[in-house]
Amino acid sequence: MVASPIRQPARTIWLEGRSICILDQTRLPHEVVTRRLARVEEVAEAITMMQVRGAPLIGVTAAWGMALAATQGMPLARARELLAATRPTAVNLRWALDEVERAPDPWRRAAEITEEEVGRSRAIGEHGLPILRAAHKRERLEVLTHCNAGWLAAVEHGTALAPVYLAHEAGIPVHVWVDETRPRNQGARLTAWELGARGVPHTVIADNAGGHLMQKGRVDLCIVGADRVTRNGDVCNKIGTYLKALAARDNGVPFYAALPVSTIDWSLESGAEIPIEERDPSEVHTIEGVRTTPVGSHAANWAFDLTPARLVTALITERGVCAASTAGLAKLYPS
Amino acid sequence: MVASPIRQPARTIWLEGRSICILDQTRLPHEVVTRRLARVEEVAEAITMMQVRGAPLIGVTAAWGMALAATQGMPLARARELLAATRPTAVNLRWALDEVERAPDPWRRAAEITEEEVGRSRAIGEHGLPILRAAHKRERLEVLTHCNAGWLAAVEHGTALAPVYLAHEAGIPVHVWVDETRPRNQGARLTAWELGARGVPHTVIADNAGGHLMQKGRVDLCIVGADRVTRNGDVCNKIGTYLKALAARDNGVPFYAALPVSTIDWSLESGAEIPIEERDPSEVHTIEGVRTTPVGSHAANWAFDLTPARLVTALITERGVCAASTAGLAKLYPS
Repeated sequence: MVASPIRQPARTIWLEGRSICILDQTRLPHEVVTRRLARVEEVAEAITMMQVRGAPLIGVTAAWGMALAATQGMPLARARELLAATRPTAVNLRWALDEVERAPDPWRRAAEITEEEVGRSRAIGEHGLPILRAAHKRERLEVLTHCNAGWLAAVEHGTALAPVYLAHEAGIPVHVWVDETRPRNQGARLTAWELGARGVPHTVIADNAGGHLMQKGRVDLCIVGADRVTRNGDVCNKIGTYLKALAARDNGVPFYAALPVSTIDWSLESGAEIPIEERDPSEVHTIEGVRTTPVGSHAANWAFDLTPARLVTALITERGVCAASTAGLAKLYPS
Repeated sequence: MVASPIRQPARTIWLEGRSICILDQTRLPHEVVTRRLARVEEVAEAITMMQVRGAPLIGVTAAWGMALAATQGMPLARARELLAATRPTAVNLRWALDEVERAPDPWRRAAEITEEEVGRSRAIGEHGLPILRAAHKRERLEVLTHCNAGWLAAVEHGTALAPVYLAHEAGIPVHVWVDETRPRNQGARLTAWELGARGVPHTVIADNAGGHLMQKGRVDLCIVGADRVTRNGDVCNKIGTYLKALAARDNGVPFYAALPVSTIDWSLESGAEIPIEERDPSEVHTIEGVRTTPVGSHAANWAFDLTPARLVTALITERGVCAASTAGLAKLYPS
């Protein structure tokens, strides 16, 4: 089950002269296409078209968009408006735009934001690595993940997959069960590709299969990312995460969420307050463009679900590992 | 969310003169194609090609194949061999072949087997109906099902869906959440179609979504079929069933399996003894023929999982409703 490393860039975003280059993620996994962006309008388009995605990567890309705007001579307030409109609900995006707009040197600040992001992902990996090392008790360390929270969602390393990459580099024989992640197939399309690109052995499974694997003792730990974590440690993440957390609990498998501090929403006491986005039903009706449901049938498409803190073994952040609880988070992040 | 009834046959299999007619289920949901089978060889092909599927329907179809063989003048032992080879693990198929081979009049016995099957499905529906009626406490009765265990898998009514059809006919405003059921999409393709064909309101969801719906109080009960039930009440069913049963338990939603007595394997003490079939990984790599995973990635494809009896509220059979336990089954089926 060893995937061979294939030709791919070291990061999801990089500089070439006064242009930025990105990996066009809409073309994955079947084609590796890089795009060169020289103007802020091109950056806005790349974000809108989801050629770049993942909260950390969107923030970094937008920061570079501001730098390009400065060079073009576009007022930064105008560039900010243009970029903020690309993904209206992305908190990280707004933060990055504010940072660059206020900075004396937009190019320097964009570069700093990029390195800060890489540092955060690496720190998540370093805090998670001892957990993976301790869980490695047989031939292979078996990790299950859901959706994509790897280097494709960030600049390097990622969140959920950062400890996996460090374990692989450290020589721990890690193998990842990759949930396909319907309806958008980010596991099958992106996680499988990025693990393959780094030579990490992995196997794609239907979202239905994780419970069976855990019953059979074939998963040592689960690790997922998070879209939002509330003060009490509830984890809002891609739809289906909750089902895997239930199976983990039922079979004594540890279940971790890995996330940067920016994902914690200190304004919400618990996950019950999070509104769950309902997306276009066409994503359920069709699979990669092919319709599976009959004409006349309805479909519904919730993007996220909530994993209660009681099912989460611990949260792995760039500041360290903590219990998924008000006390755990407060200890790590004293106010 | 009301689907309009569309033109469709009343049963999955019926006689026209000395031929049998079937609904070609490989063409669903986009086309309603019926096929006329005049020879046993055509019947064997229809089973092999999965134009008919579902244990009860395979048994009935094979019985009619034997009747056609008798009319063709083919020795029944030869016809039996031909038909038995179509689906090597189908217990029901073997039973039906034995019955017709031993019968003085193959045509009469095939007709009897058909009506016995319809009677069993109807009895399952009648035993399940009071459960649905009692669960109907608000505007709509919300039922969640996984895979396909409806009339397409039988002749009429089905197993899991039999109580749903009777509830619909009885004027209970029932709505069904239909799990897509990756990797073969039987929910999206077959369950959605057959509910639509009978005018039962339904909504297709990704397999990942059921837990979220139950957390939000939008499911009154779950009802699934079963591929095999062991003496202790463990339920082996389509992969992903276990995850839904866990979510049902976590949210106080009743979880039922509906099945004919022929599904109970009295030779096995518990589900741990059931070997789980591993199917071709190509079903996971591709969706309706379109590849989603990268070249070089592996996939794995288990067909079934095991829902422990402790998660099953009750079993609904043609003999009545019983606890999913050794005592419960023994009471219903004294040896």
